[in-house]
Amino acid sequence: MPIKIEPPNNYEVISVDDHVVEPLGVWQDRLPASLRDRGPRVVPSDDGDVWEINGNSHKITGLSAMAGKSFEDYTPKALRFAEMRPGCHDAKARIEDMDIDGVDAEVLFGTLAGLAGGTFIDLAGTDPELAAACVVAYNDWLVDEWCAENPRRLIAQCILPLWDLKAAAKELRRCISAGHKAALLPGLPHVFELPGFSDDRWEELFKVCEETGTPVALHIGGSIGRKQAAETMGAIGSGDGVAAESLVASAPLTNYGVLANLIFSGVPARYPKLKIVSVESGIGWMGYFLERMDWTYDRHRYWTHSPLAEPPSHYFRRQIYGTFLVDDTGIETIERIGPDNVMWESDYPHTDTTWPNSKAVIKEHFGHLSPDVKHDVLAGNAVRVYQLEEN
Amino acid sequence: MPIKIEPPNNYEVISVDDHVVEPLGVWQDRLPASLRDRGPRVVPSDDGDVWEINGNSHKITGLSAMAGKSFEDYTPKALRFAEMRPGCHDAKARIEDMDIDGVDAEVLFGTLAGLAGGTFIDLAGTDPELAAACVVAYNDWLVDEWCAENPRRLIAQCILPLWDLKAAAKELRRCISAGHKAALLPGLPHVFELPGFSDDRWEELFKVCEETGTPVALHIGGSIGRKQAAETMGAIGSGDGVAAESLVASAPLTNYGVLANLIFSGVPARYPKLKIVSVESGIGWMGYFLERMDWTYDRHRYWTHSPLAEPPSHYFRRQIYGTFLVDDTGIETIERIGPDNVMWESDYPHTDTTWPNSKAVIKEHFGHLSPDVKHDVLAGNAVRVYQLEEN
Repeated sequence: MPIKIEPPNNYEVISVDDHVVEPLGVWQDRLPASLRDRGPRVVPSDDGDVWEINGNSHKITGLSAMAGKSFEDYTPKALRFAEMRPGCHDAKARIEDMDIDGVDAEVLFGTLAGLAGGTFIDLAGTDPELAAACVVAYNDWLVDEWCAENPRRLIAQCILPLWDLKAAAKELRRCISAGHKAALLPGLPHVFELPGFSDDRWEELFKVCEETGTPVALHIGGSIGRKQAAETMGAIGSGDGVAAESLVASAPLTNYGVLANLIFSGVPARYPKLKIVSVESGIGWMGYFLERMDWTYDRHRYWTHSPLAEPPSHYFRRQIYGTFLVDDTGIETIERIGPDNVMWESDYPHTDTTWPNSKAVIKEHFGHLSPDVKHDVLAGNAVRVYQLEEN
Repeated sequence: MPIKIEPPNNYEVISVDDHVVEPLGVWQDRLPASLRDRGPRVVPSDDGDVWEINGNSHKITGLSAMAGKSFEDYTPKALRFAEMRPGCHDAKARIEDMDIDGVDAEVLFGTLAGLAGGTFIDLAGTDPELAAACVVAYNDWLVDEWCAENPRRLIAQCILPLWDLKAAAKELRRCISAGHKAALLPGLPHVFELPGFSDDRWEELFKVCEETGTPVALHIGGSIGRKQAAETMGAIGSGDGVAAESLVASAPLTNYGVLANLIFSGVPARYPKLKIVSVESGIGWMGYFLERMDWTYDRHRYWTHSPLAEPPSHYFRRQIYGTFLVDDTGIETIERIGPDNVMWESDYPHTDTTWPNSKAVIKEHFGHLSPDVKHDVLAGNAVRVYQLEEN
């Protein structure tokens, strides 16, 4: 069944969380000549293809490129490009894979760059010139080259030089003009030694988002799971002997505290048009989350001198969006969360992905929703949040 | 309406999470004379009544003793005993407060001792003799003195000298003989530099639990929120500028990773009769949790060489229990969680407590449940888990 979302057709299925594995040339073709030697390059090794940046190696786990593998073959070892499905890194092949899966459009995150550009925030500590150039090269490559294959179906999101929040606001404006539809931020800025989101230094960036209607996307693992993996995951698990599956199973919930802190510290209250997307966090816990936040607000707002004039759920429903793959609990409790606050995702090509079975998954798990709600969850909400054009 | 749960009447409302604020004499009346000077004592100060142990002071936050206060008067400042409701520390007064609230029985945790005895685990690092004696004094006082006021209505749970797991197993046997109905453990043993629960050194203790049918209770805040508060809560929130309410609202969810790790590391599989109570963690997220764990197991068990023969939800339903106060999402999704796996609590005298309105709360929030399910949630499950005697 061919997919036609060119005019006059509109979107029917949008996945708001998918990943590109950056191909070899992203930085080597685009960095200024003076920086190219220090910039990201791929070095084949016995353990697979490994990226090197300024002498440090960065392993991309195979778990980031498992689309098309059977579960029995899932592996955390570094993969060779030759072993990945081409759709991981090649835009033409990606569109073909989307056709197989019945997905009209994908909203895209990087891999080496990190889920919030964290690789370059880290790099800026030692080589800010290189880091800034890497951010620009990634953003340009994504929108001008990869997504240019079909900009209505491949939706670009930019990373930002967050170590300099004025420069980040400027880069965001540049990216929006170039066609980027969202900005990636780490859920826990302090992991990168950045100020908390309630700090005034974020104001210029958030104002750009408000003025332009651009959402910020907080992907799980964008901060937790990187620098502080050992400590944080240690805290979530049992220290020694933490079961790997418990980290995988717990990862979505790390956005619970992130969202609670954003709301209670007054960020959505202060920026009423800022849209915040909680990516890959699931939604089945959000009914509980809203109840628990409002309960806490009722009891604790006096001694804490809360900055909120309304209960937390008010700000959530106005400005926050959760994304999910398969989540029967979330669908059962969707009225508690808000049918306008949830968006579907397929997470291609990560281990969670529903590819190539998304059509069957949608039928099985959301088939019973009313046509309007189903459309909002699968496409309508994303069109509104990411300001996609329809006819 | 007088409450009669003496024979021939059975339990109708059991709260499985309530707290005693240890009165002045617990340790000063019971420690051997040679240890008494170093043992816990209360020192009045301008900031309220403060405990001192071996020269170090321990503030008990007012938030631990707010029963009867209006939300406007909630305060984290250290309270004076004279300012607390007597039911916080006096067993006769507690029974009267339970009568006001329509609660037949309470399952009890300490305050200075910590929610898993952590105060004395810390103390053992510098003064193991004193720490061991403090554990014994607390356990004896709770069961022989406080709960003796009415042992069918005041249910004792013991703390253990966990820095020596052989001694802990021995103390557990002693406590069970004396009438204790459960053992308190920290959800994250590594916070106290203890081995993870899948380590063989826990075997003797867990075998005692299995043989005697004694559950272990993992209260939120029993490990997170103590030693590692700054780091862990920093990781949950945004680092600098973490909103206090976000810590309060997020605290229940800290048990998500604790339970995931217990299950995936094979503890319930290895000890099939071990009952684990997830205390004050809420239940509204557990439907999602079970789905997410099973999904993770389906996809990741091959490369992780999982020790589980069955999906995680199998072990949860067989051995794990969640507790909650008011949780409409949990009640709506109770069939996903398991009506036999959830128990009600009133959390007297903490800030969350439903006292003195528990009867109204129960009517409003669970009134629509079938009589059988309602009875199980309010009493039947607790009778079975804590092995309470009925007629």
